[in-house]
Amino acid sequence: MSIESTIMEMAKSARLASKKIATSSSDKKDTALLTIAEKIEEKASYIKTENQKDLDLARERGLSNAMIDRLTVSDATIKSMAEGLREVVLLPDPVGATGASWKRPNGLTVSRMRIPLGVIGIIYESRPNVTIDAAGLCLKAGNAVILRGGSEAIHSNRALSETISQALSETGLLPETVQVVPISDRKAVNCLLKQEESIDLIIPRGGEGLIRFVVENSKIPVLKHYKGVCHVYVDEDADLNMAEKICFNSKVQRPGVCNAMETLLVHKKIAETFLPLAAKRFIEAGVEIRGCSETCRILPAAKQAAEEDWPAEYLDLILAVKVVENMDEAAQHIGTYSSNHTEAIVTKDYSRAHRFLREIDSSVVLVNASTRFNDGGQIGLGAEIGISTSKLHAFGPMGVEELTTTKFIVLGEGQIRE
Amino acid sequence: MSIESTIMEMAKSARLASKKIATSSSDKKDTALLTIAEKIEEKASYIKTENQKDLDLARERGLSNAMIDRLTVSDATIKSMAEGLREVVLLPDPVGATGASWKRPNGLTVSRMRIPLGVIGIIYESRPNVTIDAAGLCLKAGNAVILRGGSEAIHSNRALSETISQALSETGLLPETVQVVPISDRKAVNCLLKQEESIDLIIPRGGEGLIRFVVENSKIPVLKHYKGVCHVYVDEDADLNMAEKICFNSKVQRPGVCNAMETLLVHKKIAETFLPLAAKRFIEAGVEIRGCSETCRILPAAKQAAEEDWPAEYLDLILAVKVVENMDEAAQHIGTYSSNHTEAIVTKDYSRAHRFLREIDSSVVLVNASTRFNDGGQIGLGAEIGISTSKLHAFGPMGVEELTTTKFIVLGEGQIRE
Repeated sequence: MSIESTIMEMAKSARLASKKIATSSSDKKDTALLTIAEKIEEKASYIKTENQKDLDLARERGLSNAMIDRLTVSDATIKSMAEGLREVVLLPDPVGATGASWKRPNGLTVSRMRIPLGVIGIIYESRPNVTIDAAGLCLKAGNAVILRGGSEAIHSNRALSETISQALSETGLLPETVQVVPISDRKAVNCLLKQEESIDLIIPRGGEGLIRFVVENSKIPVLKHYKGVCHVYVDEDADLNMAEKICFNSKVQRPGVCNAMETLLVHKKIAETFLPLAAKRFIEAGVEIRGCSETCRILPAAKQAAEEDWPAEYLDLILAVKVVENMDEAAQHIGTYSSNHTEAIVTKDYSRAHRFLREIDSSVVLVNASTRFNDGGQIGLGAEIGISTSKLHAFGPMGVEELTTTKFIVLGEGQIRE
Repeated sequence: MSIESTIMEMAKSARLASKKIATSSSDKKDTALLTIAEKIEEKASYIKTENQKDLDLARERGLSNAMIDRLTVSDATIKSMAEGLREVVLLPDPVGATGASWKRPNGLTVSRMRIPLGVIGIIYESRPNVTIDAAGLCLKAGNAVILRGGSEAIHSNRALSETISQALSETGLLPETVQVVPISDRKAVNCLLKQEESIDLIIPRGGEGLIRFVVENSKIPVLKHYKGVCHVYVDEDADLNMAEKICFNSKVQRPGVCNAMETLLVHKKIAETFLPLAAKRFIEAGVEIRGCSETCRILPAAKQAAEEDWPAEYLDLILAVKVVENMDEAAQHIGTYSSNHTEAIVTKDYSRAHRFLREIDSSVVLVNASTRFNDGGQIGLGAEIGISTSKLHAFGPMGVEELTTTKFIVLGEGQIRE
């Protein structure tokens, strides 16, 4: 069968399966999740054997250590996949919940009921744990899902797919509810992105290159973020010790992720005091500082920043620093260079805190807290399927609820329209 | 300037204007809406003169009476446009409202704040009143908007556009907040649909052909419905008099609109009694009935339905009728042929009503009420910008709130991530 036909058949069978899972009980979905968790543990040695094939090929092809690390399924990975599923079981089932209802003058009672989206396609790189995490969240939200991981993980993903299928069948759910694309040819991704009749939403997870490829080729709506150029603004009325801790945490706690700080903006009134204080720990931690002229004057260790530093997502121990005249200039700078991901202000001033919350156009806006809190788990959504910096449907971290939508339900007693 | 550059400049200036309107106060937005309403009334004779040019051209080109009717701006149209704007003023401003907040174990307080989407493009046919309705709703929700009506209405829309611009300037808002594309060449639509850097959402309003054109050519997300193939299922336990009234209203009150019933499903146990009762008034009203074999046996006046009748959106005094074995068959039929728009059940049975509400996958699902209630105004959203049968972002009638999204706001006291 050609790649086109294989993918089309998968998408059609996912659409059929989505109708069944959409009306399955919470108990049934949770049983399926628990059964997948058990089977992953039972079949751990088989999964690791298949993963070893991927690792051997990866070494032959000379993949970087970082990539091999992400590809590896260890005993700890197995445990964390199973535990992740058990945590999803504990989340409330969003499907069927109704919001507040209101009554119309003619007596009709109207409310919104939460329902699954249908079929979701996830396109990701070579981390086999995403296969399990994404499958679990989609299933909990009553959706069917088609997973397409990087070709380097094909053996691992096939083994996980078999395990999931067996668990679904044993629970009395259709195995087509969760499918892994078994084709490593990238053409399979192109085909998947054209199944707009059967797939409702695509979520890409990975680097900017993968995401741009998906957006440019998809006929299906895509929820994504390209990058996170996150700012912390230290206001003239900041508690400087608090600001130092927040800035250090935002930059250094995990510099390679999208919610790490990339640019620090400092009010000129406190720059002379604050910058040396903050720079001390940054430099100890190996952070390279690229600053505006004023920053370089105050911090002789800093390098002069170039224009390309302001929009840069370093994902590394590098920090751009700018001294600003006032909050207007900070907001202006953020408006120009931010990726609408995460921005934070450190201040003791009520009205500037309030203004920052209202005016900064980012998916998560924080006062006196680290940018690292833009994360589904940290913010209280439970597990996270990704972060959206597009404003439609979901803006910010996306949990199980963001994998659903609402329909209106109307209760009448014979009302007709006059 | 080329069409491409004109459209690109419009889109860029709309993006800039969107930043100002996003943070404008409710008072300012409402003042602008009231000023537009006043100016439309003041400049009524100028607007009607310009409209006359469109009408003259339309008659020369031999447009249908129905089209000329939709194109006409009468005194009543002027009044209804102005009143529509004044009603939008009375709606609550969605922007800046925060939902329930929750507290994390580390003390962070998290909530969602409603914010505008940014720039919205509306593509519609030759009804000049849409120019005012859509501009009003987008403005209320804090968005900039680019309007592109049918080329037949170009003089009317330019006159309305001038009026709106003057009102915006007088109120101290940027005139680029509301722009009408001044080019009648359809190429302008193609260009508009490629401005994905500056436009956040496209809403097409019009026939299925227009909507398919927009979806196929847009690089920007589109909220739309193609058609409304709406069903009423009359259950074995229906109050037959209520069912008759609901069916008649759903079909006949305004047959040319998307929420009119197109197919009636009747449980076999009550078909012999109900169908003659319902058919009497349908036939008096000139409704042609196309039925399954069983329907034709019971109603000699009915014609035999063909397979193409089941997915048909007649938008006319024609009704497809099918007698079904039970609710399973009704749900199965709806699952196969519905356009996910509007479906209703008439029943006195609690558990079937409950099941219908849960299982039917349509944007509005009703019990014991007419399908004609799928409408933003009727359902209580205030004015309506359209109806979405796509599930992402909004599913069902869309009011002012659906022209916004939410960001997360997080209040801390120095929290960092461990």
